[in-house]
Amino acid sequence: MVYLLGMFSIGVFAVTSVLATQNKNLDIFSVIFLGSITALGGGTIRDMILGQYPVFWVNDLWFLWVAVITSLIAFFIIRSLSHKHQLLLYLDALGIALFSITAAAKTINIGFSPSIAVVMGLITAIFGGILRDVLSGSPSLLLRKEMYATPVLLGLCIFIALNQWIPNPNLNIPLSISITFAFRACSIYFSLHYPSWLCSRS
Amino acid sequence: MVYLLGMFSIGVFAVTSVLATQNKNLDIFSVIFLGSITALGGGTIRDMILGQYPVFWVNDLWFLWVAVITSLIAFFIIRSLSHKHQLLLYLDALGIALFSITAAAKTINIGFSPSIAVVMGLITAIFGGILRDVLSGSPSLLLRKEMYATPVLLGLCIFIALNQWIPNPNLNIPLSISITFAFRACSIYFSLHYPSWLCSRS
Amino acid sequence: MVYLLGMFSIGVFAVTSVLATQNKNLDIFSVIFLGSITALGGGTIRDMILGQYPVFWVNDLWFLWVAVITSLIAFFIIRSLSHKHQLLLYLDALGIALFSITAAAKTINIGFSPSIAVVMGLITAIFGGILRDVLSGSPSLLLRKEMYATPVLLGLCIFIALNQWIPNPNLNIPLSISITFAFRACSIYFSLHYPSWLCSRS
Repeated sequence: MVYLLGMFSIGVFAVTSVLATQNKNLDIFSVIFLGSITALGGGTIRDMILGQYPVFWVNDLWFLWVAVITSLIAFFIIRSLSHKHQLLLYLDALGIALFSITAAAKTINIGFSPSIAVVMGLITAIFGGILRDVLSGSPSLLLRKEMYATPVLLGLCIFIALNQWIPNPNLNIPLSISITFAFRACSIYFSLHYPSWLCSRS
Repeated sequence: MVYLLGMFSIGVFAVTSVLATQNKNLDIFSVIFLGSITALGGGTIRDMILGQYPVFWVNDLWFLWVAVITSLIAFFIIRSLSHKHQLLLYLDALGIALFSITAAAKTINIGFSPSIAVVMGLITAIFGGILRDVLSGSPSLLLRKEMYATPVLLGLCIFIALNQWIPNPNLNIPLSISITFAFRACSIYFSLHYPSWLCSRS
Repeated sequence: MVYLLGMFSIGVFAVTSVLATQNKNLDIFSVIFLGSITALGGGTIRDMILGQYPVFWVNDLWFLWVAVITSLIAFFIIRSLSHKHQLLLYLDALGIALFSITAAAKTINIGFSPSIAVVMGLITAIFGGILRDVLSGSPSLLLRKEMYATPVLLGLCIFIALNQWIPNPNLNIPLSISITFAFRACSIYFSLHYPSWLCSRS
């Protein structure tokens, strides 16, 4: 189940990447390359920092194929997708909720501390998109106003707390994913952003 | 032989990097630093993703020295080199052909699957240049019109096929390098690029 | 002692990062995220290239907490800090001197060659700042005129020489740190930069 949801998130990330680079006039190779990096990049950096070899998509080729093929399909149906931008934002929210909580759970299972699990959840969720933005010359999500990583961070902290109090992964993982998704969905729906006193002065 | 050709490619990559950053008004340290990253970066990322330690240039210092010294020499003779831009483009094509095919062969020898070998061939060939472009604030090759990575991808697929049919590395490796080089050389000579229906709409 | 000085450098790097991104109008999450990457990024890349697992801040959580909390505090007191820009430049000089020499000493202790130690010293000292600049869309230090990495490189070469002649780490490490700091401080004080014949022509 977690495995299938992970595959689903990889597909969603690839699609949102194709959407994000839509106006860059990239050729099909670059679109698929950036889509795959967006989908696989965060988890790759996590596995490399933790020294977990082989890296997840080297170990199980399905992740790579889902990323490549979803990017390819998205490239051709992008016109019809762009009408559904709002839907994709919420799918992306589901993707980062799944990615971050399952990455944190995996990190704790390997035996790392809760703080490292939170950091790895964050890295898995946001570094794929950051890599895409840097490689395609766009301002990265770190520079945007809307809350993107903060709901993930809150969700990860709640997961760590739940993991202590309710040590049943079948309960605390789905619950934390739902909460993280709810946080991010609120951030999209209400365009949440930090008040100006929590932003560096321009 | 493969070893010497690898050294040669590292030198060529360093020189093309010095040419590429020529108009950035960089100091000699930055020129050599970026030259070395261009020459060694792709292979470093490959070794780190595969968990092959020590990384190739940590294991054999000659790679590092060739990158540094070639960048240094190129810095001083850059004026005479810029007349030979066309020649350097073809040398760079030879470099990426050598890098990609030998990296794919190495990846298969270690025991990874053909798909991973293709991905590692691509990463080895193009990530050094991508790193240089990102660090020097230039638009990366992913944003350019001319086909750069696609000929490499085709060459790698042909190598995988040849490797199945003619399992003699002394035959299929040089053959695949020649084919990859020919693809890229055609792309340079005829300024090949994707038709507009294979580019995302601007 | 070296441990405490390392912690001190991490704090200084985090503070200089908050200063460097001050005019980007980032929210507090991004400020702390970039501060932590600046402080921990160089050493992370070093450990990943050398295959030294677990990476230093995964192994000892204090590094992570010092980076996060110093960034947080710096975010709130940034207005009073910006008056002390000059002081922070010298603290940053001390930070890179400490980072580079201790990283080189660590690399030699593990058993790598002096050339690798020099490269790792450089990477540890400058890659955190380079990552921050790339992720925040600023021109990286490689593009600046003032000498930043060159004094570190000279200091590292002197450390390698001292390490051969005076094989007493209690003597050669503090001495090399002082020399590296002195080089960088001169570079700041006299605005040292390369003469134009050592810069690529614009």
